[in-house]
Amino acid sequence: MSAPKKVVLAYSGGLDTSIILKWLQTEYGCEVVTFTADLGQGEELDPARKKAELLGIKPENIYIEDVREEFVRDFVFPMFRANAVYEGLYLLGTSIARPLISKRLVEIAEETGADAVAHGATGKGNDQVRFELAAYALNPDIKVIAPWREWDLSSRTKLLAFAEQNQIPIAKDKRGEAPFSVDANLLHTSSEGKVLEDPAEMAPDYVYQRTVNPEDAPDEPEFIEVTFEQGDAVAINGVAMSPATILTELNEYGRKHGIGRLDFVENRFVGMKSRGIYETPGGTILLEAHRGIEQITLDSGAGHLKDSIMPRYAELIYNGFWYSPEREMLQALIDKSQEHVTGTVKLKLYKGSAFTVARWSDHSLYSEAHVTFEEDAGAYDQKDAAGFIQLNALRLKLLGARKRRLKG
Amino acid sequence: MSAPKKVVLAYSGGLDTSIILKWLQTEYGCEVVTFTADLGQGEELDPARKKAELLGIKPENIYIEDVREEFVRDFVFPMFRANAVYEGLYLLGTSIARPLISKRLVEIAEETGADAVAHGATGKGNDQVRFELAAYALNPDIKVIAPWREWDLSSRTKLLAFAEQNQIPIAKDKRGEAPFSVDANLLHTSSEGKVLEDPAEMAPDYVYQRTVNPEDAPDEPEFIEVTFEQGDAVAINGVAMSPATILTELNEYGRKHGIGRLDFVENRFVGMKSRGIYETPGGTILLEAHRGIEQITLDSGAGHLKDSIMPRYAELIYNGFWYSPEREMLQALIDKSQEHVTGTVKLKLYKGSAFTVARWSDHSLYSEAHVTFEEDAGAYDQKDAAGFIQLNALRLKLLGARKRRLKG
Amino acid sequence: MSAPKKVVLAYSGGLDTSIILKWLQTEYGCEVVTFTADLGQGEELDPARKKAELLGIKPENIYIEDVREEFVRDFVFPMFRANAVYEGLYLLGTSIARPLISKRLVEIAEETGADAVAHGATGKGNDQVRFELAAYALNPDIKVIAPWREWDLSSRTKLLAFAEQNQIPIAKDKRGEAPFSVDANLLHTSSEGKVLEDPAEMAPDYVYQRTVNPEDAPDEPEFIEVTFEQGDAVAINGVAMSPATILTELNEYGRKHGIGRLDFVENRFVGMKSRGIYETPGGTILLEAHRGIEQITLDSGAGHLKDSIMPRYAELIYNGFWYSPEREMLQALIDKSQEHVTGTVKLKLYKGSAFTVARWSDHSLYSEAHVTFEEDAGAYDQKDAAGFIQLNALRLKLLGARKRRLKG
Amino acid sequence: MSAPKKVVLAYSGGLDTSIILKWLQTEYGCEVVTFTADLGQGEELDPARKKAELLGIKPENIYIEDVREEFVRDFVFPMFRANAVYEGLYLLGTSIARPLISKRLVEIAEETGADAVAHGATGKGNDQVRFELAAYALNPDIKVIAPWREWDLSSRTKLLAFAEQNQIPIAKDKRGEAPFSVDANLLHTSSEGKVLEDPAEMAPDYVYQRTVNPEDAPDEPEFIEVTFEQGDAVAINGVAMSPATILTELNEYGRKHGIGRLDFVENRFVGMKSRGIYETPGGTILLEAHRGIEQITLDSGAGHLKDSIMPRYAELIYNGFWYSPEREMLQALIDKSQEHVTGTVKLKLYKGSAFTVARWSDHSLYSEAHVTFEEDAGAYDQKDAAGFIQLNALRLKLLGARKRRLKG
Repeated sequence: MSAPKKVVLAYSGGLDTSIILKWLQTEYGCEVVTFTADLGQGEELDPARKKAELLGIKPENIYIEDVREEFVRDFVFPMFRANAVYEGLYLLGTSIARPLISKRLVEIAEETGADAVAHGATGKGNDQVRFELAAYALNPDIKVIAPWREWDLSSRTKLLAFAEQNQIPIAKDKRGEAPFSVDANLLHTSSEGKVLEDPAEMAPDYVYQRTVNPEDAPDEPEFIEVTFEQGDAVAINGVAMSPATILTELNEYGRKHGIGRLDFVENRFVGMKSRGIYETPGGTILLEAHRGIEQITLDSGAGHLKDSIMPRYAELIYNGFWYSPEREMLQALIDKSQEHVTGTVKLKLYKGSAFTVARWSDHSLYSEAHVTFEEDAGAYDQKDAAGFIQLNALRLKLLGARKRRLKG
Repeated sequence: MSAPKKVVLAYSGGLDTSIILKWLQTEYGCEVVTFTADLGQGEELDPARKKAELLGIKPENIYIEDVREEFVRDFVFPMFRANAVYEGLYLLGTSIARPLISKRLVEIAEETGADAVAHGATGKGNDQVRFELAAYALNPDIKVIAPWREWDLSSRTKLLAFAEQNQIPIAKDKRGEAPFSVDANLLHTSSEGKVLEDPAEMAPDYVYQRTVNPEDAPDEPEFIEVTFEQGDAVAINGVAMSPATILTELNEYGRKHGIGRLDFVENRFVGMKSRGIYETPGGTILLEAHRGIEQITLDSGAGHLKDSIMPRYAELIYNGFWYSPEREMLQALIDKSQEHVTGTVKLKLYKGSAFTVARWSDHSLYSEAHVTFEEDAGAYDQKDAAGFIQLNALRLKLLGARKRRLKG
Repeated sequence: MSAPKKVVLAYSGGLDTSIILKWLQTEYGCEVVTFTADLGQGEELDPARKKAELLGIKPENIYIEDVREEFVRDFVFPMFRANAVYEGLYLLGTSIARPLISKRLVEIAEETGADAVAHGATGKGNDQVRFELAAYALNPDIKVIAPWREWDLSSRTKLLAFAEQNQIPIAKDKRGEAPFSVDANLLHTSSEGKVLEDPAEMAPDYVYQRTVNPEDAPDEPEFIEVTFEQGDAVAINGVAMSPATILTELNEYGRKHGIGRLDFVENRFVGMKSRGIYETPGGTILLEAHRGIEQITLDSGAGHLKDSIMPRYAELIYNGFWYSPEREMLQALIDKSQEHVTGTVKLKLYKGSAFTVARWSDHSLYSEAHVTFEEDAGAYDQKDAAGFIQLNALRLKLLGARKRRLKG
Repeated sequence: MSAPKKVVLAYSGGLDTSIILKWLQTEYGCEVVTFTADLGQGEELDPARKKAELLGIKPENIYIEDVREEFVRDFVFPMFRANAVYEGLYLLGTSIARPLISKRLVEIAEETGADAVAHGATGKGNDQVRFELAAYALNPDIKVIAPWREWDLSSRTKLLAFAEQNQIPIAKDKRGEAPFSVDANLLHTSSEGKVLEDPAEMAPDYVYQRTVNPEDAPDEPEFIEVTFEQGDAVAINGVAMSPATILTELNEYGRKHGIGRLDFVENRFVGMKSRGIYETPGGTILLEAHRGIEQITLDSGAGHLKDSIMPRYAELIYNGFWYSPEREMLQALIDKSQEHVTGTVKLKLYKGSAFTVARWSDHSLYSEAHVTFEEDAGAYDQKDAAGFIQLNALRLKLLGARKRRLKG
């Protein structure tokens, strides 16, 4: 790979990406464009601008954008249509944000004539894969620079030395090492590393930042109603809201009731296991609600097919293959299933849990006429069941007969 | 089908199966053998014996058996090795009990020279299918009698009249109609019908029989440790127990903390949707614990394969295909995966929830050496990730290049 | 089910459906509308009109339609996009024609105010299921009449007697029983029953009607080129043709070279095995060609996903679930994959076989630059493979280390 | 990776691996152990011994083994139980041989105290992945050396110069470059590269080495019978044979009749497409025969499940994951299905094709009593089909009703 001339850097404004910024300038002598996105991580973006300017980035090379609506509408919601969970439990909060960042990096590269993009993910994790697969899919000629895999700043001491040497301001609380590593966006906050590295040890309370401890949550349950149209949440308690607003609201409900905590050991795509603490307050409520509305609006054929491909869909997102033909094919399948996933779910929120307690819809397939224990006025002829069972049993009888015949 | 001469009836001792017993005698003039199983449903079996005798069943034709250990060891535990849930949420508590009952019905038929078996399931539900598919698979020549699909006792009034006419004792509280229908065993209690038939209405509190309301559960969390060997739970808090004892204990923990409630609309195999309230206190804890131990003892290849076939496995059990080649094939696959699923999980139980908070095992695949944020002493070479990403990206680059080429 | 007043009958003009026509009139006293479709079965339709008139059907109640283009365009081609084969070998020639017939039956019922449709499939086969599931899906209120399951005309003698009694003309060659049963359309001819019922006996030569015996095929191979656009064949040897014309042409190539014969024992949806002889001359060439063009235009992610869902897709069509949400969901996935399946395949046809021997496309993903044994000018860095392998191996190493540790 | 001290080399005796042998000695100064296996590739092994001696390998370090029986029994046959084909058509002939070679390399390393193994696969192909994943799975501490990824002998000229410089004898016909690259074993011969690199060009006739051109095959068909026990072929024409003998015999039948040629563009695991010519004469017959016997001995549940997991199983083998938990899990599933796959298939071999024409078995599930067009003496009640269809249709009716309701 020839040296990059102009690089678009995914820039948070924090110490680590500031070091990367400076390292790119010094190592490659290249022009740097910064991209700072508001994905709902809960941090001010203005300081990032100031810091970028301080580090010598030209104003026209500083991109700061609020992408929350796009994030929820085009990434989070499509994923939730699938009820996607990785390895049974993880709601993919980090995974789903990476493709959007890469997309904007590549687009900005094309706008600014940059030949490379750069990110601050390490060589051990999944995020490097997600950033880079997305970037290469969107622009096969782009260069991707991953400083953590290249440089020799392999310890905290070296990093701080590099920072001081290059006049990068170091916040007081960054002098010491953080006790764990954090990623956050509108969907979730993840924490991992350091104090969390032994999965036999309970996570300390201070790791949780996004939700109250269920023990400290209100002693009374709260009931809310979430309305869906074609698989996407569109209103809470009857009030229509934009995608990002809905997720923000659900996050607040979840935070308050201690919902969405997960202590998890997962398999990274790069081959090792890692332990993370995830907090996905609104997403956990949303998943429960979406399942609730599907219960009455999806038929079994659609639902079972969705269930059977979900693990693969989730794995694709986790592994960084958002911009792959197979993810798009599965999305087409999933979206097709959601045409009638319209209606309202009532949930009970209480001390760490969100449970569906009622659901209704004009699109409901639930037929009281058929299921009732009462007289059903001919909606269903119980005698049909005899034939249904006989023909389902036929092959089993033939198998049973073979077993007896061969024994005899 | 020619008339049966001798029938083995799945007999609970309750009013409905007593009516069936008498109806078999009067309708077919056949000899009846009763089979009453203790599956952990929490009812005394002695009254069933007395009632059978009262209805004229010969003592040698009365079979009363405690099958709880067999139930958990040979049915519940194998199913939990798969983390089986139907339609995302239901732990299959009713489904998994039916094959065992059918198996004993068929065995007793062979022991007693009976040519038929009979059950009390209705023509609208899944249980008729489960009973009959299992019976036919185990004995392709057996006759199965399903009185609810045959007789004209189509209303409560007619049933009671038949009972009175035949001197079947009617408990006072059975005169009126039950407000809903219940099935119970060691794994769960299900409630459905009547007051539950409108899925837009919240279930009344009195429906829940097996668990305390989370609001009434203890205000302090409780921590327990569950130990697994090759995928099956073998001890709680270090105390080794038999399968049924473990489930019984977990049920008590779950009951106390309000764990395992589910308000659910599901797709029946016979084609309609129905709404049920399930309480699976111990099973819910067990599922969480099993997932927890798998997190450190299963590698991703094994785990993802299991996840991908699980929906099909669950569907087979739900639909009544326990004794089918495909269920046995999937079981072989699942059991193969569990050889190293050995270790201990620590769970937090609190007001409706069971969460894994720690796990450890001699069989753990978790490698702190590889995952650590600290120096890893060469366990992992971050530069390998570059090649890994490049080759995973290659096809995406070729796709991206095609897209650009065709546009250009 | 109340008696039908007006019935749309799938009418071939043959003896059996003529008997059904008359039986419907006499049994139910209902008005009959006939629908006769040209699906490419190779029979004149005019006699069907005359015969219907002879049997008293009013001219406005006689529907005769050439649906070959619709059949290939909307049913055959979408199915071939999936490379669908049932149980590894069967190209689904009968299965795919049934939904179209049912669709027209239901539409004609709605146009003519009929309340029922009727078909001539027996109670043992798959076709009854396919006809009826399609009809009920398209009009849940329609009645479906399946005379073979209702009447007592259970032997050839009784059928002929009924025909004579009702002045239904009987062709001389229909007096005796046919030695086997045939179904045909533009995609295939199937033969089953009677002389074919013992799968241990070779099918007699006279069963094959649609293809020459490979031994009698030309001694010289013939080469043809099939061009695809977005997954559908659009031209042969550079000549653009309509869907039905292409299949007709391919049939002629296949017939001449003895291509597409299959002697097969399959699992019917109704639970039994049956043996059939299938001849799918053009379809066999088309499948090979479609696979050939996908080889260079689909990437592995898309191709492997398609392969993995194909058996389920084929099973749905075989079982009669064309008009089901899950078939439509899978179709959405498949169609999404075909956007770039455009290009040309060259095939060698010779004595029973069709083999791809070359293929090219502007949409090709094949990169000689990458794969070449020669110098590749940096297209591919072989050192990347080392990292790729190391990270793919990581979990296997951890598994291997566990095995050694536990043994040690 | 520290330098290896003693290396076990997969040694064919040919020029390339002889160069590798010498390069290992000179580059690393390490002791070399050679392993040469007779996998049925059709070459004498004695010359390999002599050449190894000539290159200075100590006699006790020269391993030459006939592994044909192990190859077919423990690798080929288990794979054929699955009817495994990669991307619809490729019988995996190269893929399945690699794990066995790696297994012996690792075992010999342990016997001889070697710390490394080496292979002659290039950095662009799948074989490097297969060799190395297998080696690492079996011994996580082994070093694997892949000279083609390391050295700078990047052109034919440099290789020959190295050979001359190191007194490696060069056969006359190896001076020029081979027009394509070949791999062979008892299951297949593959050819790729050079003259085959343009998939739009037909492969020249001289590429085919293992089978006669169908045009040159006998003008008369030949019929053979293959007998299976529990999924594995055990006899031809009634004569019992060992696994390798059976495959050898079938190869001869296939060669003679021009069976098993495949011109194929496939997706390599490393991300690119490549074109290969495969000849799998015996394997192609074996696959057809195995499908034939499964048709009457597997029920639909077992068969459809096998079909649905087959693509994943084949992909695992292709990608080199033979020694992975998921391959072993799938094998357990597949093997479970084969318990009754016992019986005999009759095949017609003729000018490039092998077709099943008859099959019989004591384990057959085919029931003429059920399927017959004649009177079936009550084996099957056609009226059962009505109920079967009604309940399968129920959800489709509810879907249809919804569609009408929402339109109305």
